[in-house]
Amino acid sequence: MSSSFDFAPLFPPGLPAPSARWTGLAKYSFVGGNNDSEQVPVDELIAAVDSALRREGRMLATYGLAHGPQGYLPLREFLTAKLKRDAGIACTVDDLLIVSGSLQALDLVNHTLLARGDTVIVEQETYQGSLNRLTRLGVNTVGIPLDDDGMRMDVLASTLADLRGRGIKPKYIYTIPTVQNPTGSIMPESRRAELLKLSAEYGVPVFEDDCYADLVWSGERPPAIYAMAPKGGVIHIGSFSKSIAPALRVGFIVAPWDVMSRMLALKTDAGSGALEQMVLAEYCKPHFSTHVPALTKVLRTKLDTLMEALNEQFGTSAEFEEPKGGIFLWVKLPDNVDTLKLYQAALAAGVSINPGPEWSTSKGHSGSRLRLCFASPTHQQIRDGVAVLAEVCRREFGVPARSANVEKAQA
Amino acid sequence: MSSSFDFAPLFPPGLPAPSARWTGLAKYSFVGGNNDSEQVPVDELIAAVDSALRREGRMLATYGLAHGPQGYLPLREFLTAKLKRDAGIACTVDDLLIVSGSLQALDLVNHTLLARGDTVIVEQETYQGSLNRLTRLGVNTVGIPLDDDGMRMDVLASTLADLRGRGIKPKYIYTIPTVQNPTGSIMPESRRAELLKLSAEYGVPVFEDDCYADLVWSGERPPAIYAMAPKGGVIHIGSFSKSIAPALRVGFIVAPWDVMSRMLALKTDAGSGALEQMVLAEYCKPHFSTHVPALTKVLRTKLDTLMEALNEQFGTSAEFEEPKGGIFLWVKLPDNVDTLKLYQAALAAGVSINPGPEWSTSKGHSGSRLRLCFASPTHQQIRDGVAVLAEVCRREFGVPARSANVEKAQA
Repeated sequence: MSSSFDFAPLFPPGLPAPSARWTGLAKYSFVGGNNDSEQVPVDELIAAVDSALRREGRMLATYGLAHGPQGYLPLREFLTAKLKRDAGIACTVDDLLIVSGSLQALDLVNHTLLARGDTVIVEQETYQGSLNRLTRLGVNTVGIPLDDDGMRMDVLASTLADLRGRGIKPKYIYTIPTVQNPTGSIMPESRRAELLKLSAEYGVPVFEDDCYADLVWSGERPPAIYAMAPKGGVIHIGSFSKSIAPALRVGFIVAPWDVMSRMLALKTDAGSGALEQMVLAEYCKPHFSTHVPALTKVLRTKLDTLMEALNEQFGTSAEFEEPKGGIFLWVKLPDNVDTLKLYQAALAAGVSINPGPEWSTSKGHSGSRLRLCFASPTHQQIRDGVAVLAEVCRREFGVPARSANVEKAQA
Repeated sequence: MSSSFDFAPLFPPGLPAPSARWTGLAKYSFVGGNNDSEQVPVDELIAAVDSALRREGRMLATYGLAHGPQGYLPLREFLTAKLKRDAGIACTVDDLLIVSGSLQALDLVNHTLLARGDTVIVEQETYQGSLNRLTRLGVNTVGIPLDDDGMRMDVLASTLADLRGRGIKPKYIYTIPTVQNPTGSIMPESRRAELLKLSAEYGVPVFEDDCYADLVWSGERPPAIYAMAPKGGVIHIGSFSKSIAPALRVGFIVAPWDVMSRMLALKTDAGSGALEQMVLAEYCKPHFSTHVPALTKVLRTKLDTLMEALNEQFGTSAEFEEPKGGIFLWVKLPDNVDTLKLYQAALAAGVSINPGPEWSTSKGHSGSRLRLCFASPTHQQIRDGVAVLAEVCRREFGVPARSANVEKAQA
């Protein structure tokens, strides 16, 4: 061998394209699920980890702290209380599986239920990480359009009937009902009941992703779909990424044992990180219920700043519904704007955005839409970043007109 | 629907059997890679996490602490220095990927290189987690027998020639060369060179698993195979599970960019846990090089206790080679002992062992062998557990004879 070893001939078919090298975050970063760094409760987390390690640090010598594959027991105990209080879910620690972020939850649910060629139902606009996974698994996704109350039940009903007519039984109905990603809607209780009725009628389980459900402006949310289904048929997942800190990578799954036991057989990682489970359990028991409302209040002010900045800079060119919580705003630009192209041009100008087509099963509907995360940038970065974005958009697509803000102000 | 929702009809073909409910560790636990709880440096870890969080805790609001998908930069910096010093590997932070334990490393390497029906070469006795993964992926494993110096190169050469003759090109040669699991051997430098020569000749890369390489009684180890291959063709993985604490779930991969970029595209977990990376970086920089020799010394005394207890209780019925490091002893019992059956009977008596057939591609060779982890139980538990194990073995298989220890003493 005279030159370097060449791995390329060994790669199997279907491998995704190689990743590019990391070049850091954009100056104005509106992407991903990053949160407000000022709201990380650093002192309390330090105290929590100190206390947990003093008491149980020696157990780090044992995989999973000897608490078994479902995760650190005190964290599961906190979650049973929290899920009961906030989401109306009555479950025990045996119904809970702690995972390495809700992305691992998606993987475990998918690998438990899906095979190549299967069909699942999703919301037409939905989480990119879920869509990408389904694509990689070779699963067909059918998108159901959303309105202000989330997934439209009339379309879901006709879609299920249509699929049945074609001999197709979807493997699940995936929904983010409580602060939908990216649209920010909350599905009302009555619609959740309709969804469960359809689920039971067609024998198709509901896969409920409640990742953002802690961050609701009003502080009130409907019961989880899981809580409304006494006969089961719902898998529920959640996360601490949005409520405490995304870098910690701790999520959870609530599921009946017949599914749980299958997921456990697929969770071959020797347990999720113990230290992060310990610190969360120790911190959350005394602090979660005060931390989250304080965080939500701060996020709400950032949303206001973003909406003001968009109104100022884009005027009527940027349309959006005010989300009911969360960290994202879903924005519609004029039809001639291609947000995939805008993404590239904006990035070159130091602004990163999530282009709509990556968050949707309908490239037509989403082509001129984009998702903006308002939690991570400061108020000033939001204002400055939106100004740069407007400038790039004007240069590339002719909108907004320079006088957009004036038009708006005079309207 | 009158009864509970039934998920069973939705499961895809080939799903593994459901897991049983967790019932806790055995009273005398000789299984898994658990370590000595007394050796967890609790105070120093507390100080490390305090210091790291005070300095960078706010960054937990950003996925991966904004250090990109390859992991926390200070931990990668520590590793480049450590790998250079201990294993002779000259790599940069760009060649390193931090993963959630070396099990995720196995998954990423496998998914980057393997497709169903592929063939790989492994050591005949090897890590169960690796064998199980390959089985699940539908990959054929060819086991190469070991001697006191690890994988036998004469058999590897003839196997590669034979496979070539049949038109089969293996995707990799998987080896645990430095404190082999389960046999505890260390492959000498000259044999590593032979292995690399065969790897180059046949165009088959080496997959080097160095998980146990820190725990060598002599404190000296040969250079990593990765370090000896200037033309590449080696993927190297390691872990902090054995050197610091398994529950932390932090491992790493060293690989050239053409493989790294493919693995990054498959690592869709939004980063491994940041807190555990932070605490390890902060702790290891000042303490790793003193902690590991102290830990190794303690483990060596436990090995002595285990070997003494086996000699006492089993006499000549238990044969073993003294491992050169690590946390495992690989034991041969008389041919009539079926360690899969012994496993069940021992568990009922409160002793858990790893039966040989789960750690081998040769059920014949391994049927009367077992692996014992001596790191986790106390000296007293080792003595008591081995006594119980001998009693169970005698009852079930007639060996050791009651006078085994006397025989041994008189031999």
